[in-house]
Amino acid sequence: MSLLGGLLSTVFERRYRGDKGAGQVSRPFADLTVDLMRTTGEGTGMAVARAILDKFAASDDDEKLAFFRHLAEDLTISPEDVRTALDAYEQGQTKASYRKFMTAAEPPRQELIRRLNQVPGATRQLVAMRADLLRLGRGEAALDALDLDFRHLLSSWFNRGFLVLMPITWESPAHILEKIIAYEAVHAIDSWGALRARLEPADRRCFAFFHPAMPDEPLIFVEVALTGGIPGSVQGVLSEDRPVLEAEGADTAVFYSISNCQAGLASISFGNSLIKQVAADLSTALPNLKTFVTLSPIPGFAAWLQEAGYDVPEGDPARLTGLTALYLTTAKRPDGLPRDPVARFHLGNGAEVHRLHANADVSPKGMQQSHGVMVNYLYDLSRVSQNHERYAASSEIAASPEIRALTIAAEKAKA
Amino acid sequence: MSLLGGLLSTVFERRYRGDKGAGQVSRPFADLTVDLMRTTGEGTGMAVARAILDKFAASDDDEKLAFFRHLAEDLTISPEDVRTALDAYEQGQTKASYRKFMTAAEPPRQELIRRLNQVPGATRQLVAMRADLLRLGRGEAALDALDLDFRHLLSSWFNRGFLVLMPITWESPAHILEKIIAYEAVHAIDSWGALRARLEPADRRCFAFFHPAMPDEPLIFVEVALTGGIPGSVQGVLSEDRPVLEAEGADTAVFYSISNCQAGLASISFGNSLIKQVAADLSTALPNLKTFVTLSPIPGFAAWLQEAGYDVPEGDPARLTGLTALYLTTAKRPDGLPRDPVARFHLGNGAEVHRLHANADVSPKGMQQSHGVMVNYLYDLSRVSQNHERYAASSEIAASPEIRALTIAAEKAKA
Amino acid sequence: MSLLGGLLSTVFERRYRGDKGAGQVSRPFADLTVDLMRTTGEGTGMAVARAILDKFAASDDDEKLAFFRHLAEDLTISPEDVRTALDAYEQGQTKASYRKFMTAAEPPRQELIRRLNQVPGATRQLVAMRADLLRLGRGEAALDALDLDFRHLLSSWFNRGFLVLMPITWESPAHILEKIIAYEAVHAIDSWGALRARLEPADRRCFAFFHPAMPDEPLIFVEVALTGGIPGSVQGVLSEDRPVLEAEGADTAVFYSISNCQAGLASISFGNSLIKQVAADLSTALPNLKTFVTLSPIPGFAAWLQEAGYDVPEGDPARLTGLTALYLTTAKRPDGLPRDPVARFHLGNGAEVHRLHANADVSPKGMQQSHGVMVNYLYDLSRVSQNHERYAASSEIAASPEIRALTIAAEKAKA
Amino acid sequence: MSLLGGLLSTVFERRYRGDKGAGQVSRPFADLTVDLMRTTGEGTGMAVARAILDKFAASDDDEKLAFFRHLAEDLTISPEDVRTALDAYEQGQTKASYRKFMTAAEPPRQELIRRLNQVPGATRQLVAMRADLLRLGRGEAALDALDLDFRHLLSSWFNRGFLVLMPITWESPAHILEKIIAYEAVHAIDSWGALRARLEPADRRCFAFFHPAMPDEPLIFVEVALTGGIPGSVQGVLSEDRPVLEAEGADTAVFYSISNCQAGLASISFGNSLIKQVAADLSTALPNLKTFVTLSPIPGFAAWLQEAGYDVPEGDPARLTGLTALYLTTAKRPDGLPRDPVARFHLGNGAEVHRLHANADVSPKGMQQSHGVMVNYLYDLSRVSQNHERYAASSEIAASPEIRALTIAAEKAKA
Repeated sequence: MSLLGGLLSTVFERRYRGDKGAGQVSRPFADLTVDLMRTTGEGTGMAVARAILDKFAASDDDEKLAFFRHLAEDLTISPEDVRTALDAYEQGQTKASYRKFMTAAEPPRQELIRRLNQVPGATRQLVAMRADLLRLGRGEAALDALDLDFRHLLSSWFNRGFLVLMPITWESPAHILEKIIAYEAVHAIDSWGALRARLEPADRRCFAFFHPAMPDEPLIFVEVALTGGIPGSVQGVLSEDRPVLEAEGADTAVFYSISNCQAGLASISFGNSLIKQVAADLSTALPNLKTFVTLSPIPGFAAWLQEAGYDVPEGDPARLTGLTALYLTTAKRPDGLPRDPVARFHLGNGAEVHRLHANADVSPKGMQQSHGVMVNYLYDLSRVSQNHERYAASSEIAASPEIRALTIAAEKAKA
Repeated sequence: MSLLGGLLSTVFERRYRGDKGAGQVSRPFADLTVDLMRTTGEGTGMAVARAILDKFAASDDDEKLAFFRHLAEDLTISPEDVRTALDAYEQGQTKASYRKFMTAAEPPRQELIRRLNQVPGATRQLVAMRADLLRLGRGEAALDALDLDFRHLLSSWFNRGFLVLMPITWESPAHILEKIIAYEAVHAIDSWGALRARLEPADRRCFAFFHPAMPDEPLIFVEVALTGGIPGSVQGVLSEDRPVLEAEGADTAVFYSISNCQAGLASISFGNSLIKQVAADLSTALPNLKTFVTLSPIPGFAAWLQEAGYDVPEGDPARLTGLTALYLTTAKRPDGLPRDPVARFHLGNGAEVHRLHANADVSPKGMQQSHGVMVNYLYDLSRVSQNHERYAASSEIAASPEIRALTIAAEKAKA
Repeated sequence: MSLLGGLLSTVFERRYRGDKGAGQVSRPFADLTVDLMRTTGEGTGMAVARAILDKFAASDDDEKLAFFRHLAEDLTISPEDVRTALDAYEQGQTKASYRKFMTAAEPPRQELIRRLNQVPGATRQLVAMRADLLRLGRGEAALDALDLDFRHLLSSWFNRGFLVLMPITWESPAHILEKIIAYEAVHAIDSWGALRARLEPADRRCFAFFHPAMPDEPLIFVEVALTGGIPGSVQGVLSEDRPVLEAEGADTAVFYSISNCQAGLASISFGNSLIKQVAADLSTALPNLKTFVTLSPIPGFAAWLQEAGYDVPEGDPARLTGLTALYLTTAKRPDGLPRDPVARFHLGNGAEVHRLHANADVSPKGMQQSHGVMVNYLYDLSRVSQNHERYAASSEIAASPEIRALTIAAEKAKA
Repeated sequence: MSLLGGLLSTVFERRYRGDKGAGQVSRPFADLTVDLMRTTGEGTGMAVARAILDKFAASDDDEKLAFFRHLAEDLTISPEDVRTALDAYEQGQTKASYRKFMTAAEPPRQELIRRLNQVPGATRQLVAMRADLLRLGRGEAALDALDLDFRHLLSSWFNRGFLVLMPITWESPAHILEKIIAYEAVHAIDSWGALRARLEPADRRCFAFFHPAMPDEPLIFVEVALTGGIPGSVQGVLSEDRPVLEAEGADTAVFYSISNCQAGLASISFGNSLIKQVAADLSTALPNLKTFVTLSPIPGFAAWLQEAGYDVPEGDPARLTGLTALYLTTAKRPDGLPRDPVARFHLGNGAEVHRLHANADVSPKGMQQSHGVMVNYLYDLSRVSQNHERYAASSEIAASPEIRALTIAAEKAKA
């Protein structure tokens, strides 16, 4: 959205500020933020807010960093003020003393970001601003702290209750679909024809979360294959030569790809909600679906195998899947959680390690990261809650008897 | 939304929790909030959150008060923890120490409210919850403080950037229109026929703000008459016998009624934004519109007249409007702002006192509150910003030469 | 739509014809129709077509009649031309000779009406024009013939394949709902509150057919009550005090009111399709529904009773329903079809006379037309096709054993 | 749509006909048409109609031809019956005698096609059926006659008043956009990237007509470039390197490509309406647009040059455009209309030959058909009506002074 850009609402603003708009952008950030913070009523700082957003959008990385440091250093909390307000609050817990404490304890940059967000279209720009902050500021303590404020506000605004689940189909708008192509992070989509092959057949589904304030931007999406039974090869799932199933005839929904779309929403998680909501909607629409399962990559397996000093058991799929079972159920991070990031995601959601398949992803990426092995995580609706709680309480990993047996055999072989 | 209510998303949940749902609601609030606060990941506390909302909706006033006091007392800040975290932060301003401070300085009830808001449809319930809090808790210090937390979160969620302006027409859904009838607070609408008379004619407009998370609930709406020149009687404006103007032929847009709809959003103001946005949209659609003006009640005039010991100048409209000018421009609250609440609203927006009309609202309510006098506040787009700033800085009241002259004459007469 | 009215498309037209528009309307109909008929290409006669429609809309009944007679007399077939074209066609059946025959055998007024229909919004005006024709022209042979042309074209344009079924709910636009109130022909709706009571409860449904070219006008609508079992009183069905059923818990859908909305579409029937489509949609959405049944008035019963010389069996409901069974299954028109018009409609659709209820409509209208008796026609999906065929082939009336027994008893009593 | 296909409405039908559906399709066409023609009420023949459509869709060309011949020979008019009905009508012009004549004079296959059209989705299938008829039947007199019936009905159903103009943008559904790629007939679109370049930039527009009964199928579309001044090269217009204009800054709208999409709607013309409607909408939205002009190919020029024995004046653009002017304004068909088909289209709409450009289409196709010359036809809103009338009355070709001068010079040079 350019300074004199398109929204109807700007007509008024344009008259209102006359030619001042252009002038605003040339003022220093620090002056603009002072102006925005001293506006008193709702809506009154709109022109200044827009100027800040426009100026930021036109800035280079050095200027952006300077802006972030300004927020981090000049618009942070004053420990002294906090302490004063806290003392007063302790002496008399009134509405007034609590309000003063709230004001003192929240850094003014949070209010600044809220005021920036008044501008129509600003939410998308603030998400992009945080992406810049993560890219430029990482490791600089004051900017890491600033990011906590961004994350705090964005978490509140991108609350699950505000998100809208939308099916993505071959009838979706092209400008959305081109983002699906761009954001697919698991199994790349290399053409519009390949995209159609994932959306149009009767046995394919795709769903994305959107936020009403940025309706042209998917936040996260999941691709689903409807199958008879649990598949053991992603190339098989994606094969355009496969016989296409009638949706009503499928008994299994396979979540074979989940991609986050917005770098600026990093560590604000939607995946768990997305999978549960999609499973809910699918099971309502297609009552024959009995099994909800992923077909997931194992990104850390090959590296672990090498570190742990195992030879790669080429040509021995049984031994390969045994080692994979060992990796998934026993390889841990220092904090006791599984080493594999995809495992952490699904186990954290309450899924369980269900089945392993050798030669399941024979793409270069698949061979390189896990020697072609893939795993099904099972979302068993009757156990997902209890699995989640055990995992959360004691990092206990839920796994099928088949996986348990593989692990035991692999441990014996190792011994 | 009932416990086993209608949203698709609940199908999964229902399976997930089995019969536990009903059981949840019978547990004490304090147990449920503990459960909700210890959930670890996104989405995992959905069933507990829903149980709390359902239990609250089914509670009587005593139970609601008990719930509010639980939030106010058990889920508030710990000054000691804040002080410890603040000390640590001062000694080393790291990401970790800042995060600990943020956590300590924010009362856990804010996080609780955010988690409640994950449930689809929860936003409307939280707004209603705050309406209950305002009704039941006013004057109790801890509950007044709790309200600041509600207000803080709702202000952030009902940020101008998230609101959607929608025209309300005779083609709008009936369940929205019945709310317009119910919420009209200035000039009552007593039937569907009267509603149609305010929406359907070519010289009428109505607009409302909505929030995407509660799309069936208008937040605030304004009714507009398109006229030739500035009208001086609301009965004239509303007369169904008037000749109806072609919209393209009007030169003036009269905002003759603005009504807030949500008690639970009290003191979260949208009116300024609404008027400006509507003026913007109208001036784009109808370029002949040159004047944007209200026709407003003067709710405090009669009371002030009595308090100040004036006789009511019956049958002397000139002297009556002189006293009204005196009231609007000189009667102040202790804080220096105008005594009249409608005046405070429009002057705060940057409007100016423009013209007075005797016999302008001869309804019983109009006669009783202001002896029939009404006022036009003018939104002059070239001056609204500067008016606002002067009012904000020094409580200076913008008024037309006509009003100034009336005031001077009234002051002379008084002397 | 006024002559210089609102559609975007008219902007071009307005420039195109300059001030000629107003002049057009003042020309005689006969000149305008000549002009319209000699236009050569697609779209070129738009301005003339619009002038004819506008002139007609502004005409009084005498002028309308004169216009209809002009169409009937001046734009009819020429038997001589038909005969010549037919001879030529018989001598050589070529594309050219067939085309000439087609042209000669179709009265030019059909082409005129098609050209009028090019104007955006014209379809609604042509439907209104036919309503005028039926009102003014009935019994005048040439105008009756003209009506056959209107009906021929409207039947083709309002083909089932072009109609759209829409649910009517309390969330429907008010300008549609006010038409539902106005058009309800069976059980009057006397207020918006009464309308809401038929739309909003969980056990109520309403559906209407619309045509895309007149989206603001319902063509026909049906009101449905979802019940447990077959109800025997329309006051019971409509009672606002009844316990409201969850839709999923109902086993029966009762079509208790069907109303045609457009006088100009008389004898172009949609009711059969509407009932079947609604039954289809309901049985998909609510699989527990097993019975599809009407609760219908018997408008001709009281008159027949009187003509046939029966005493009204006051206070003897059994004898009353016996006579009703006799009436419905044996009283015939000269053409052998049932005398009762509602019976003809439902039996023609393949329904069967299922059950009779005394004291089922105790409104003044119900008492007056049928002494309070009402009837259920049953749409049994497994028999509806065969019922229809027998009725069509031999006027055979399908009835339940209960109705058959009642009839036999009544015949015996009579004998 | 398969026999047991997806529409909700079929649920009822499916129950209704049980397993008879599959059986229906195996019966001969002649039996099915007899069944369909003897159905009596609205909607009752739906299952048979669907069977005919399904059977046709599954037929090979020989079977399709046999079906068409069946319609042409067995469901045609009976001259004897027409003559009898005509005689009766002449003896007494009553409603009944007129109705009999109407019935006799219309071949029963028209009623058959109308009944087929009752099936949801049938319109698209009937359009495809006519495409088959045109492909298979051309030159066979009885099938040419049958096509007149198809065309008669489709003309009535695809009446301008029923069409909906929709903008085609990069936000349109992908399944519509892939049809734009497929149907583009003037300047091929070879990738999704090339499509985006014609839709997304601020100085590009595209519009299509749709029919509500086949909403996924564009009927005709036009591509527009917004420019400053009249461009003289289509490669220039399409260049992705050009500076993109703000739409508000353009003074000229260039219709550089118009494509019909439906072979089955051949000779049912929409282009004139489309251009006029688009010009109307654009001039409303962008008041600065003053000139509406095409940049058109001249498909017959090169062939005419060769036939007429001219040398191609390579390297002499002035002489080349002189000959083009001569061709466009003087080369005629036997019927006196211009030889060039694109010229006939635009001149018939009331446009005028405005300007010629050498080297304006240097693609292989452009060089081959017209040695790279292109022409602007101007739609001057003040003259389009009068141009059309003169062209229709006397084949008079409107041309600019520049074109007239070129023609005179070329004629002199020739002499």
